[in-house]
Amino acid sequence: MSTNRQILVAELPQGRLEERHFRLHEAAVPEPADGEVLCRTLELSIDAAMRAGLQGSASYAGKPTTDIVMGGGGIARIEASRHSNWKEGDLVSCRPGWQDYAALPGDDLRRITPLGPLSWELGILGGTGMTAYFGLFDVGRPEPGETVLVSAAGGAVGSVVGQLAKIHGCRAVGTTGSDNKCAKLQSELGFDAAVNYKSDDFRDELKGATPDGVDVYFDNTGGHVLGSALFRANQRGRIVCCGVVSQYDTSSPEGGPRGVPGLLVNKRLRMEGFLVFDYVDRYEEARRQLADWIEAGKLNVLEDRFDGLESAPRALVDLLAGGNLGKRSVHVAD
Amino acid sequence: MSTNRQILVAELPQGRLEERHFRLHEAAVPEPADGEVLCRTLELSIDAAMRAGLQGSASYAGKPTTDIVMGGGGIARIEASRHSNWKEGDLVSCRPGWQDYAALPGDDLRRITPLGPLSWELGILGGTGMTAYFGLFDVGRPEPGETVLVSAAGGAVGSVVGQLAKIHGCRAVGTTGSDNKCAKLQSELGFDAAVNYKSDDFRDELKGATPDGVDVYFDNTGGHVLGSALFRANQRGRIVCCGVVSQYDTSSPEGGPRGVPGLLVNKRLRMEGFLVFDYVDRYEEARRQLADWIEAGKLNVLEDRFDGLESAPRALVDLLAGGNLGKRSVHVAD
Repeated sequence: MSTNRQILVAELPQGRLEERHFRLHEAAVPEPADGEVLCRTLELSIDAAMRAGLQGSASYAGKPTTDIVMGGGGIARIEASRHSNWKEGDLVSCRPGWQDYAALPGDDLRRITPLGPLSWELGILGGTGMTAYFGLFDVGRPEPGETVLVSAAGGAVGSVVGQLAKIHGCRAVGTTGSDNKCAKLQSELGFDAAVNYKSDDFRDELKGATPDGVDVYFDNTGGHVLGSALFRANQRGRIVCCGVVSQYDTSSPEGGPRGVPGLLVNKRLRMEGFLVFDYVDRYEEARRQLADWIEAGKLNVLEDRFDGLESAPRALVDLLAGGNLGKRSVHVAD
Repeated sequence: MSTNRQILVAELPQGRLEERHFRLHEAAVPEPADGEVLCRTLELSIDAAMRAGLQGSASYAGKPTTDIVMGGGGIARIEASRHSNWKEGDLVSCRPGWQDYAALPGDDLRRITPLGPLSWELGILGGTGMTAYFGLFDVGRPEPGETVLVSAAGGAVGSVVGQLAKIHGCRAVGTTGSDNKCAKLQSELGFDAAVNYKSDDFRDELKGATPDGVDVYFDNTGGHVLGSALFRANQRGRIVCCGVVSQYDTSSPEGGPRGVPGLLVNKRLRMEGFLVFDYVDRYEEARRQLADWIEAGKLNVLEDRFDGLESAPRALVDLLAGGNLGKRSVHVAD
């Protein structure tokens, strides 16, 4: 193949993201410079936080612009190398963006030795699993017997957090956006309870689902679910700030929850944000532990895959509308 | 003396607290029951958080009612004891409320061996100093060279936090409500900079006062100062949630700051509330350290005292309007 299909950001979204904000472009396959490698994209990760990168506001991804390849992480195979660490055929975790080929600095890659299907390296054994594992255990620090609440519990990270909480001996409660997903969280992933955040009686239902309060709240959403969770928090509760998906698909994020900072003082709460990249030195420890739990049948892998690079815009737009259950990814090439 | 002057809560405030919300009452001096002691109030502490106790919303002090003695902490001398730990003449830290005499359970008292003037036991060597010491060092954990920002910096806690930050080798910056207090924070307490939060250019002035950003923000106020501090926070910044004085003197507290939880994720911030009572086992360690620093001339003691039990309502109302510089207390008896 000598052309490089690319999906460009055609227009920055003002309200909700739509497929028309992207366009397909064909370019030449790039030549790696000295110190670079040529990556063939195999799998692309689709994450809600990618929407935040298209907002004008502060984001760890920096300010967005148009007519550039949509950014994104994935798994790639090295096709040509001008970096001494890498050779043709190596599998790597990298940020190729939404395109078939990318020339990337050899220093920015992480080697992958798959412990299962390649798509797991994006999900349960990749960024998703790492986020759930370190966010829950290192930031949230639940004790067995405590109640762990997680929002976006049907999502890639949330569905793992709830299962890890159960493995750790905690009560696992999730919030999600449909009754159907609530049922699946309980029947397929072993959550003790699940609550639909769109319900008119959400606050009461959340109270019913957390009779002993909430010790650790793993927050993927912000917004009114965070506000409600703060009111259910127990003394010395911990709020793991992982993502703000309720505020991504808009240009006018809402204000913060009413209980901040008053409830933090009265209940001695700790609210802490983290970025998973900070734990890269411990990824192997987490990967082996997660793989063991999968092997032992304690951890279910929920995948939600799209096929073909051209499906990436649809995969992201639908994800932001709550269409996924488990880790969403796009299969680009074998 | 056979009468017990008491100041009662006559009416719960709806908006700002006023002196008319209190009334003077004369009762008999109480008889201590078995296990109780009779306390003679000597000094009363006047704290902004006392206003929160008069709000209907959740507070660690519980729901308020009228026609009861206004609650409050202070220093007392034991006049009669029916508890084996205590004898006449002992000095204690306790919660006598706004009255001359109180019969209190002997188990609820903390013995005081003064390291200086008795009023210090309420301020720099009492709850105020303990709050500043443990909040800054244990919750905020600043490193020498870092920038510490503190709100309500002219207040009892804030004025100590800034000085402790300087002793620890940090850059100390305060926010307060008048240009006059800003000047005094710098000239009398050694703050590196101080900003008037009522200024129209507050955000720009705060930016100018924190050229290297903010590593630890000690929050006594909440509100827009907290919001601005979050935007100035550096990566891995810490926000010590100590009080919410901006929201006390009202019945309709405002929403939380816009940057929560988004900025917590992007900047990996930790925001943590605490209650000083949790550190009671370490009070002596802190008291001795603070007394040493006073002795060495490194720590200035700023007191702002009123005289006479009847002045307590005015002392609190004025404090809430920002009238104090340093620790406010009421001298009741010798």
